[in-house]
Amino acid sequence: MDCAESLFKTAAAAGIDVCFANAGTSEMPMVSALDRVPAIRGILCLFEGGCTGAADGYARMAGRPAMTLLHAGAGVANASANLHNARRARSPMLNLIGDQPTWHRPFDPLLNSDLDAIAGWSSAWVRRADVAARLAADVADAAEAAQQAPGRIASLILPLDALWEDVAGPANAKPYPRPLAVPGATVEAIARALRGAKRVALLLRGPALQEAGLRAAARIRAITGCRLLCDTFVPRIDRGAGLPAVEKVPYFPEDGVASLAGVTDLVLVGGTEPVAFFGYPGQPSQFAPADCRRHVLARPEDDGAAALAALADALGAPAAAKAEALPVLAKAPAGRLTNQTMGEALAHVLPEGAIVVDESITGSAPLYAATAGAARHSYLMITGGAIGWGIPGATGAAVACPDRPVIAMQADGSGMYTLQSLWTQAREGLNVTTVIYANNTYEIIKVELARAGIDKPGPRASALADFHDRPLDWVALAQGHGVPGVRVDRAEDLMREIAKAIAEPGPHLIEAIL
Amino acid sequence: MDCAESLFKTAAAAGIDVCFANAGTSEMPMVSALDRVPAIRGILCLFEGGCTGAADGYARMAGRPAMTLLHAGAGVANASANLHNARRARSPMLNLIGDQPTWHRPFDPLLNSDLDAIAGWSSAWVRRADVAARLAADVADAAEAAQQAPGRIASLILPLDALWEDVAGPANAKPYPRPLAVPGATVEAIARALRGAKRVALLLRGPALQEAGLRAAARIRAITGCRLLCDTFVPRIDRGAGLPAVEKVPYFPEDGVASLAGVTDLVLVGGTEPVAFFGYPGQPSQFAPADCRRHVLARPEDDGAAALAALADALGAPAAAKAEALPVLAKAPAGRLTNQTMGEALAHVLPEGAIVVDESITGSAPLYAATAGAARHSYLMITGGAIGWGIPGATGAAVACPDRPVIAMQADGSGMYTLQSLWTQAREGLNVTTVIYANNTYEIIKVELARAGIDKPGPRASALADFHDRPLDWVALAQGHGVPGVRVDRAEDLMREIAKAIAEPGPHLIEAIL
Repeated sequence: MDCAESLFKTAAAAGIDVCFANAGTSEMPMVSALDRVPAIRGILCLFEGGCTGAADGYARMAGRPAMTLLHAGAGVANASANLHNARRARSPMLNLIGDQPTWHRPFDPLLNSDLDAIAGWSSAWVRRADVAARLAADVADAAEAAQQAPGRIASLILPLDALWEDVAGPANAKPYPRPLAVPGATVEAIARALRGAKRVALLLRGPALQEAGLRAAARIRAITGCRLLCDTFVPRIDRGAGLPAVEKVPYFPEDGVASLAGVTDLVLVGGTEPVAFFGYPGQPSQFAPADCRRHVLARPEDDGAAALAALADALGAPAAAKAEALPVLAKAPAGRLTNQTMGEALAHVLPEGAIVVDESITGSAPLYAATAGAARHSYLMITGGAIGWGIPGATGAAVACPDRPVIAMQADGSGMYTLQSLWTQAREGLNVTTVIYANNTYEIIKVELARAGIDKPGPRASALADFHDRPLDWVALAQGHGVPGVRVDRAEDLMREIAKAIAEPGPHLIEAIL
Repeated sequence: MDCAESLFKTAAAAGIDVCFANAGTSEMPMVSALDRVPAIRGILCLFEGGCTGAADGYARMAGRPAMTLLHAGAGVANASANLHNARRARSPMLNLIGDQPTWHRPFDPLLNSDLDAIAGWSSAWVRRADVAARLAADVADAAEAAQQAPGRIASLILPLDALWEDVAGPANAKPYPRPLAVPGATVEAIARALRGAKRVALLLRGPALQEAGLRAAARIRAITGCRLLCDTFVPRIDRGAGLPAVEKVPYFPEDGVASLAGVTDLVLVGGTEPVAFFGYPGQPSQFAPADCRRHVLARPEDDGAAALAALADALGAPAAAKAEALPVLAKAPAGRLTNQTMGEALAHVLPEGAIVVDESITGSAPLYAATAGAARHSYLMITGGAIGWGIPGATGAAVACPDRPVIAMQADGSGMYTLQSLWTQAREGLNVTTVIYANNTYEIIKVELARAGIDKPGPRASALADFHDRPLDWVALAQGHGVPGVRVDRAEDLMREIAKAIAEPGPHLIEAIL
């Protein structure tokens, strides 16, 4: 068996069976091996940022890593912005990175670059698999490393000469590491502290934002009256009818500080306390009041959902919180579209079990608020601020969950970074409906200019933030990638077109003119 | 004067007046300052790879750096593949990279990443400009660093807090470093060696491939009968009618070795000896015969063109080589398009003074050969193997030379990496004609699979190299970016459409079905 075949068989044995690929010459053995390992589904992306964004979206929904197949330093460089997002989302991922034969690298061929530096900064685990006989074991190690709770990026650099060799066979998969159990003493100590606490907030992260964690958090709320919070940029939260509503920590420091004012006890479940996305002159970096008590119930590597249930028990909470009151949906919107009515329109037509992928940037706060009372859904956001995650992320989520419709709410400026993933949606027949917020602007830049006191930027500054003078034609862009597209500028038309797109198999794009 | 204004005024004083920009929040002071420094032309690119690819194309034609404006680590990551190409082309470039305020970084906000690692590997010079009073001087240093012959990438990391401060004013530009003169003794020694040499080849790199260097090389050829060679991936060569023809070193090792077989003396002008792009089992890394004598006439940092002239003098060559015989153009092609007829068609309609940008990959060898006898033109190639350089590179070349038509001969798979640069061409009204080699394949992968003995890859391997099942619609993609497009599949139609596109101002795209 050749080494590349042993690689994929080892991955398959470890439960990793999807590979988002953009190969080059040095990955030929791996490309060719796919014909001999049908357990692995290779999915072509026309840009590497599409591979890693898809692997991230996949991992958030599947709860396990996908592979990516990347070509040398240049390929990893192109993949890096979405590796950054995946790192911030704590998504597991296994990158296979082809490289020159070891004996050729000292000649510094043109494609050579500092691959260790390029792959190193975003990966928690990197290894150069340069001995064929050990390579399958390297893959098993990488799979284990990626699955370290809550999820990590593992990168395996694969020189071409090792891949061509014959080896004995695949390696056995290692058992996946489990999240760590939170000690009872930690739970008890926090329960004691909360009994006398005045204003408690739970900040939930990671898997604690799925059903079991949310129900446990609702029990704690029932007995303490605490608030339930999640991060501004939440990797995944399950929400909608029947699940407790979770407030997002606001984006801007003044809003974040106002939101957390008066909190006396902040319970951290799966992460650290909220920090501003950007630093602004005269504004604080942290949002929680200085005198608020911080309680670390679970670190990222801990089982946060179980810790929440244990805390609820320790507090003597009822076994189940009473049924959640459904937040009231705004009435069906009509007329010209705004960020507000975009969210309302989606809330009205969102089917049970949908996956909402949110890279709407300035549209995000109203979108999250408007969909709180919608049918049950999973909601995924860009996490690291490296725009160009949405279309790839939606692609990966759809691969993970072929039976759940995916609706990608996508800012236009951000969407342009990785629009090539539309093609992968078309080729794979994925059920993704992309809704473009077509404001022909980097709206966030205008907002930030205004915050910096520049309400009326001059024409030269404006030209770097606004492209109304030369609007994009997203319907044509979609068509170019093989995705049917339509343009709307009214809320009622948007609702109709979303419903229609979801009813038809395969991808669709709706350009919503704002 | 605020610090950002002093930054651009210093750059302008150093002769750097174009800025390819994709800004985010941390670059607001720079965006805003552009309104106060009209000497700087800000050009919006919708993806960072478009910024750095354009700056590279600009530098190759203008002979001086452009700036790029990039947003934090994520922005530099997206820009990196084309930074790699620029590094391999030895193009000067000045990157301005916005970052968080220094006091906010320790809180590790989500956008934080290892910016020093991300910017470091491709840049020859990196500095963190965190003291406002010194920042203008940092810019002057960066401009000088970028201009170190033959050209380097200089990256300045600019924390937001420094940029908002008031400063005294811009810094004085430093004189640009000049290429170093090659010592007379070196020239004399090589002249002596060549007098008795049997089969001499000159390998020309860098500025030696422009008119003065080429004419000096032709003088040497006239007296020694030597061959004139350039690299497979040549950053820029001026060629066509009236200039001596220069052979490209072939791509594959077996061809490279065959091409250099029998060479007794290899004169290196501006670089090192030829090395295979990839290493293949059983094939050598270096092309030149082991017993061939290597003579380093000029290092990259030396004045290669002057050294060639001195060598010609030392050899007693005639003051000017006799007029070059024009290589004969193939007759005008007709019928269905192939890589061969694509090149012939271009050769027939190429106007005097055109700039040909070649990222046609598998189309490149026939393109270069077919255009040898065309009208005088500059020919630019992707240099580092990081595909996605062509459309941005053509954009930058057109900014540098608004009066010269640019024709981008573009492979489809590679073009998809950075197609967003079409929009910049439309907005800026650039005279670029993009000709897409629409074979709906990563043809090079098929070639490499065949070289690896896999003539008939299975369906799963093929699916990662071939997308005929879901062809791209480049006319729609062009339209989506605001560029008029047309589709052709015959050579006579291609010639007509190229001529028409060149005659009309602004960008055009021609999808050539292969």
